[in-house]
Amino acid sequence: MVNSAEPSTMHRVVIVGGGFGGLYTAKALGNAPVEVTLIDKRNFHLFQPLLYQVATGTLSPADISSPLRGILSDFKNIKVLMDEVTDIDPDRQVVLMPGQEVPYDTLIVATGVSHHYFGNDHWKVTAPGLKTVEDALEMRRRIFLAFEAAEKESDPTLRQAWLTFVIVGGGPTGVELAGAIAELAFNTLKHDFRRINTTEAKILLLEGLDRILPPYPADLSAKAEASLNRLGVTVQTRTLVTNISDNGVTYKLADETSEIPARTVLWAAGVKASAMGKVLEQRVGATLDRSGRVMVEPDLSLPGHPNVFVIGDLANFTHQNDKPLPGVAPVAIQEGEYVAKLIRQRLAGNTLPAFSYQEVGSLAVIGQNAAVVDLGFVKFSGILAWLIWVFAHIYYLIEFDNKLIVMLQWGWNYFTRKRGARLITGESSLMQVDRNQNGTYSSAAERSTLKV
Amino acid sequence: MVNSAEPSTMHRVVIVGGGFGGLYTAKALGNAPVEVTLIDKRNFHLFQPLLYQVATGTLSPADISSPLRGILSDFKNIKVLMDEVTDIDPDRQVVLMPGQEVPYDTLIVATGVSHHYFGNDHWKVTAPGLKTVEDALEMRRRIFLAFEAAEKESDPTLRQAWLTFVIVGGGPTGVELAGAIAELAFNTLKHDFRRINTTEAKILLLEGLDRILPPYPADLSAKAEASLNRLGVTVQTRTLVTNISDNGVTYKLADETSEIPARTVLWAAGVKASAMGKVLEQRVGATLDRSGRVMVEPDLSLPGHPNVFVIGDLANFTHQNDKPLPGVAPVAIQEGEYVAKLIRQRLAGNTLPAFSYQEVGSLAVIGQNAAVVDLGFVKFSGILAWLIWVFAHIYYLIEFDNKLIVMLQWGWNYFTRKRGARLITGESSLMQVDRNQNGTYSSAAERSTLKV
Repeated sequence: MVNSAEPSTMHRVVIVGGGFGGLYTAKALGNAPVEVTLIDKRNFHLFQPLLYQVATGTLSPADISSPLRGILSDFKNIKVLMDEVTDIDPDRQVVLMPGQEVPYDTLIVATGVSHHYFGNDHWKVTAPGLKTVEDALEMRRRIFLAFEAAEKESDPTLRQAWLTFVIVGGGPTGVELAGAIAELAFNTLKHDFRRINTTEAKILLLEGLDRILPPYPADLSAKAEASLNRLGVTVQTRTLVTNISDNGVTYKLADETSEIPARTVLWAAGVKASAMGKVLEQRVGATLDRSGRVMVEPDLSLPGHPNVFVIGDLANFTHQNDKPLPGVAPVAIQEGEYVAKLIRQRLAGNTLPAFSYQEVGSLAVIGQNAAVVDLGFVKFSGILAWLIWVFAHIYYLIEFDNKLIVMLQWGWNYFTRKRGARLITGESSLMQVDRNQNGTYSSAAERSTLKV
Repeated sequence: MVNSAEPSTMHRVVIVGGGFGGLYTAKALGNAPVEVTLIDKRNFHLFQPLLYQVATGTLSPADISSPLRGILSDFKNIKVLMDEVTDIDPDRQVVLMPGQEVPYDTLIVATGVSHHYFGNDHWKVTAPGLKTVEDALEMRRRIFLAFEAAEKESDPTLRQAWLTFVIVGGGPTGVELAGAIAELAFNTLKHDFRRINTTEAKILLLEGLDRILPPYPADLSAKAEASLNRLGVTVQTRTLVTNISDNGVTYKLADETSEIPARTVLWAAGVKASAMGKVLEQRVGATLDRSGRVMVEPDLSLPGHPNVFVIGDLANFTHQNDKPLPGVAPVAIQEGEYVAKLIRQRLAGNTLPAFSYQEVGSLAVIGQNAAVVDLGFVKFSGILAWLIWVFAHIYYLIEFDNKLIVMLQWGWNYFTRKRGARLITGESSLMQVDRNQNGTYSSAAERSTLKV
């Protein structure tokens, strides 16, 4: 038992999850008169908005990650625990992990979301999503291995299937992935192969609704689509994916079913709440929405449990507009800072008005010099939007050395269009191409060992 | 068949292996009147001398890797093939891969070496070696997970076992690993934990011979040992490891058998020739030495096969001194450049005198400001040696962007002693600590899935 040997009279705050929500809560409680324990199953904070650049060979995982202990080491009132919370006991006020428990006076749950395959969980193997470092490296492996496989393939039909990349889901992640793969095929790799012409690659972005970037204003969606087209991406809206196999994607468009032969399918379509949502439902009677997110009070606490908070992507906060706040970093950061402030105020015997999100705008990058920005009062696209995107992302990178490295990488890539991090790693990286000359993986089990 | 569709009248050179030997041969044949195929199972060249910095959290894999296609893309006479050569047929003059073959007029084999456990191959799982990117990430995972496990462990004996790191083998890799882990424990991580004191870590470097860095002059070995001691490393020579288990290392010293409880054991003791040595023995009657390296002629060709060359770590070249040239990058580079020149001269109807290695000196780094350098005519240690080491390594990094990134990372680490790349990655990174409270892995199979 972690705290059993160290009884404390200080107010104990337990934060579960070291993403944007959890980390900014902890930082805002640094040197406060509380004892904080931040629990995460990983030992690092991941800057998820740039994960697609790891998946497409621009950045390395460490460039967008910071060790949680390192970030928080100066705050002597904060303890970091690398572990996975599996349950909570609200009566005894403890969170439970395999083999240990940690008591809390205030609990903040910020465990985020994972991929959602809408009842087709077996697509996970064929069409990986992008939430973790491992996901990104698996995407990177598949993307670069596809070009290698195409170079080896003598059958033109199979070769084209290796050169076809389908991205399912037209939100920011899908748009960013599609744009980056297009830049790879049409620029970075253009001179690297001898048999294939990488500019013959097909990059398809499939979206179920009637436009990409659905939460953005319609004219920005249109501009984003035009930019993607210029980069060489085919955007197909109102397209419902009905099946994904090793050979390609089956979809329905206006009641007609078609198939695209493609060896590389990437999932950017849906998210569902992490398992802590269910735990809160069972243990403190939390109400979940359709995606499993937790309905929160105006102060982000749970009904009847003023000392239990849910923040970030896992929270469904509907008190500001009719629709829930979007699952983006600025929302999680502001929620975390609000809860930290609320805890300080409560300890001082004060209260705080309800949480209110200060809109900072929406950003999505499409490619070099191309992005769309919606700041609410003004929206625009093109180079200026791209520069805003660049600086916003550099600014929010946690560690100063990460900022330097990422700036240097981007500057270098900008002028040379090179991408240094296009390694195919993983013990079995050759397996899929060599051992199966028909171009399919032999089994899901074999594939799961390909991760690196 | 790769070349079947493209018949060629040009002299065809096939290079197997994209390490220092193979890559520098290819570069030296760039734009020569020959058709070059470089075959490697990986899509990148790895700067192995800095791999220990990936294993200890300073650099990312991409910082010390360069995509082979990218390096060679300007040479239109060079083709890169990502594949694994399994056999050769000297009568038909082809190299064989699963499902394809490539014909050659001249063949250069540069497939290097892998770990050697001296008949104890099962130690591989408990004491990983350091040859590939995956090896380095596995070491990194184990090193940083050990500190996390120690932080969780309440039993002081088990905690000390988690804080004990044993490096087997006192060559340059072992010395560099031991020094880097000592800097981690005694500097970088000092303020990051709350329950453990990382400066209580024990770092042991075990060497079978009577001094570390055996190929260096004896006084440099002594200086290296003194530097390691100052950093907090315990060096134990004349120590023969007799068993490695999940619980620790058993060794013999002066006929006495002892055991060190340790959860992290790293292997830096021996290398053996890659499988291509055996292939050459069977197919062209090559003679192998005790480590499986191929005995080569004064021009690096094989006896009776003037068009088949072996270079780099796989070659045993004894014509210059009595003892074989060491398995280091400068030897491989010079051998590659020699063979490329010989091929050009032969095509012009000329000959070339026998290969002769130009000694460039030996370098080993111990830690910040501490290294030993032996330039033959002069040898020294300390800061100047360390600066020479730094610049030599930056200079030989293939790509300009890698040089920039690595310089920036080193500069940053130098002043802050931070290490940004200390991520614990791998899907099952928690498994070993959580699911086995006795602190052991549950099975080799489970462990093999931990690679990332």
